Amino acid sequence: MTKGRLEAFSDGVIAIIITITVLLLDLPEGDDMPALMSVMPLVGCYLISFILIGTNWVNHHHLLQATERVDGKVLWSNLLYLFVMSFMPVGTGWVGRSRFAVFPVRVYVIINLAGAVSYYLLEKAILRANDSEALKSALNESRKEAWTFAVEGLALIATFIPGLHYVSCPLLVPAVAPWIVPDLRIKRAFEEARKTQQTKGEKHE
Amino acid sequence: MTKGRLEAFSDGVIAIIITITVLLLDLPEGDDMPALMSVMPLVGCYLISFILIGTNWVNHHHLLQATERVDGKVLWSNLLYLFVMSFMPVGTGWVGRSRFAVFPVRVYVIINLAGAVSYYLLEKAILRANDSEALKSALNESRKEAWTFAVEGLALIATFIPGLHYVSCPLLVPAVAPWIVPDLRIKRAFEEARKTQQTKGEKHE
Amino acid sequence: MTKGRLEAFSDGVIAIIITITVLLLDLPEGDDMPALMSVMPLVGCYLISFILIGTNWVNHHHLLQATERVDGKVLWSNLLYLFVMSFMPVGTGWVGRSRFAVFPVRVYVIINLAGAVSYYLLEKAILRANDSEALKSALNESRKEAWTFAVEGLALIATFIPGLHYVSCPLLVPAVAPWIVPDLRIKRAFEEARKTQQTKGEKHE
Amino acid sequence: MTKGRLEAFSDGVIAIIITITVLLLDLPEGDDMPALMSVMPLVGCYLISFILIGTNWVNHHHLLQATERVDGKVLWSNLLYLFVMSFMPVGTGWVGRSRFAVFPVRVYVIINLAGAVSYYLLEKAILRANDSEALKSALNESRKEAWTFAVEGLALIATFIPGLHYVSCPLLVPAVAPWIVPDLRIKRAFEEARKTQQTKGEKHE
Repeated sequence: MTKGRLEAFSDGVIAIIITITVLLLDLPEGDDMPALMSVMPLVGCYLISFILIGTNWVNHHHLLQATERVDGKVLWSNLLYLFVMSFMPVGTGWVGRSRFAVFPVRVYVIINLAGAVSYYLLEKAILRANDSEALKSALNESRKEAWTFAVEGLALIATFIPGLHYVSCPLLVPAVAPWIVPDLRIKRAFEEARKTQQTKGEKHE
Repeated sequence: MTKGRLEAFSDGVIAIIITITVLLLDLPEGDDMPALMSVMPLVGCYLISFILIGTNWVNHHHLLQATERVDGKVLWSNLLYLFVMSFMPVGTGWVGRSRFAVFPVRVYVIINLAGAVSYYLLEKAILRANDSEALKSALNESRKEAWTFAVEGLALIATFIPGLHYVSCPLLVPAVAPWIVPDLRIKRAFEEARKTQQTKGEKHE
Repeated sequence: MTKGRLEAFSDGVIAIIITITVLLLDLPEGDDMPALMSVMPLVGCYLISFILIGTNWVNHHHLLQATERVDGKVLWSNLLYLFVMSFMPVGTGWVGRSRFAVFPVRVYVIINLAGAVSYYLLEKAILRANDSEALKSALNESRKEAWTFAVEGLALIATFIPGLHYVSCPLLVPAVAPWIVPDLRIKRAFEEARKTQQTKGEKHE
Repeated sequence: MTKGRLEAFSDGVIAIIITITVLLLDLPEGDDMPALMSVMPLVGCYLISFILIGTNWVNHHHLLQATERVDGKVLWSNLLYLFVMSFMPVGTGWVGRSRFAVFPVRVYVIINLAGAVSYYLLEKAILRANDSEALKSALNESRKEAWTFAVEGLALIATFIPGLHYVSCPLLVPAVAPWIVPDLRIKRAFEEARKTQQTKGEKHE
């Protein structure tokens, strides 16, 4: 039951985060094509954020599905994760309005890195709370996490090299690419967990 | 379980989309009837958007009810659909504030067309994920989709004919009219699916 | 299941409506007591709206609990009801910013009256969809509805009498007062419905 | 069922409150570090509010889990609690924009005190509605409540001593510190309640 409400609350916050980013899109000043074009960098930035938040939501979804127990540390790791994610709309708005200026792009990349780190901490907290062998072996490899950290690290470095910061925002998409395909490790662990539960249920009978 | 959370997340996003459109209604500047009248085009535009989003929600509702399996493609088709729908508030705001100028109306019609296309893709993704004969034969006719594409296409063409673009926004309502009556094809398929499930259940016993 | 999602969606929209009204509260311009005092009419207006929306939510809650069947008409009556309620934030903002000027107060009273009418239509739609004797006899009395229509009608008339429109907003609270105590008629009908269901269940066995 | 919808609605409102506070963060005016630094007081203020609202949510969560019956008074106590919490975003925004000026800080501390009081009233209402010995003995001690009232009282007093009001906002974090560890009293009461329920269930059989 605890888990259900955690999911509902997280869904609510993520749904709001993903949607209010749209509110940071200014209405075009004028009624023609150039006016529309002038807000296009913002729309591009919104698209990237939408993909990032969407990917995060799909994986958060799978992660919690494989979870059986939720304790205080999981609740607070999840809140930390939502806190970091809640900076996505202002980050997006700042990058878009500054027309991809160096410093806002750097801050935006750091928000994404912080999101990846807090997601990693949430994984660890869930691992500690759930004594599931399958989940443990599956998540301990952390190859996807390593890839994301590496590519987002590159995106961060790019903001320090003159003229290269335009690559940073687009780089964030390949950084999360391995996550777009839902986390098969977790799926497998989940099915294992279900079997274990059924076995337990049969023992009770 | 996956399906339940997909519904909850979609409901959350659509509820936010439908409600924040109201935030784009400016407060009337002044305390009298003319001040109220000056925001009336926005209210009219909001009414049309509310009907469109409401229709979409009711049908999204029925579509997911007939769904048994949700895979990665369904998740991402649904996110694409929500991404397109999330432009409804800014689209509405732009049309209303420009007092139904040609170009914003054209963009608004395109958002609606893109919404119809992404809904169609979501239908296809759900069909592929669910091996349900009933759902297949029901959705394959696509008469409603053809009607919507045709009428919204007309609304788009109207924005290119001088003086006719005032017809475009009102045309969007008949375009979704066949959807206002909840999708009986899906209802039938759903009942069929339920029967099948019960039969399966009886076999298990 | 349909009913569950209708409740979730309505809860979402009402939660957003009740919360974004706060966004229409301007931050005080200045850092002292007079600055705070200057936004107090808005806070008072927000309080009234919060009580009205809260009352509506509690009763909407009880009404749907007694509902067994949800059809297209119920879905659309509910959307109409949410559409009307979605004007509460802008209505509240306009009244507050105009410091309770005559015309915005009149519009605000009309929004509340329209809310009462659409709630009444939703009741009727639910009655038609559910062939429940208990629900029928309980809701057919309509004494609460008559009281609300009468007092809100008075509040509307007061906006046409010079100097008396200050009474209108406060009058809206007694108008919904009989609803603050959750609708006992529905509670009784609900328990009756549950008994009937149990009886049916026993027949099936 | 009533309880489920109360939780869902509260989650929705709290999710929105926690997220829209971000909207009150102005975008930095400029594209460099000083521009970012100039919004940092707001970010710090947002962090404190996030911890406070998060703590409240986690405890609200545990409180409702131990609840079996929900009556009209619980519904309205909960609405009062949400009403008070809904002032957190504007309070946060005012403190941040005024760069921690004395008066806004005082108002912000008062909002937090009012939140603690309304949470206390909600506890009492739930106690009255649920005739649970375990819940009663657990909540009656009220040591955490006393601590919170005392420390928030100190924070309020500090706003009246020249130069000391900078301590007030940071003081709010230790004020809720004992709540960060989920309420063990309630956890214990909850397990007791479950056992009682099981015993009842066994009696029925």
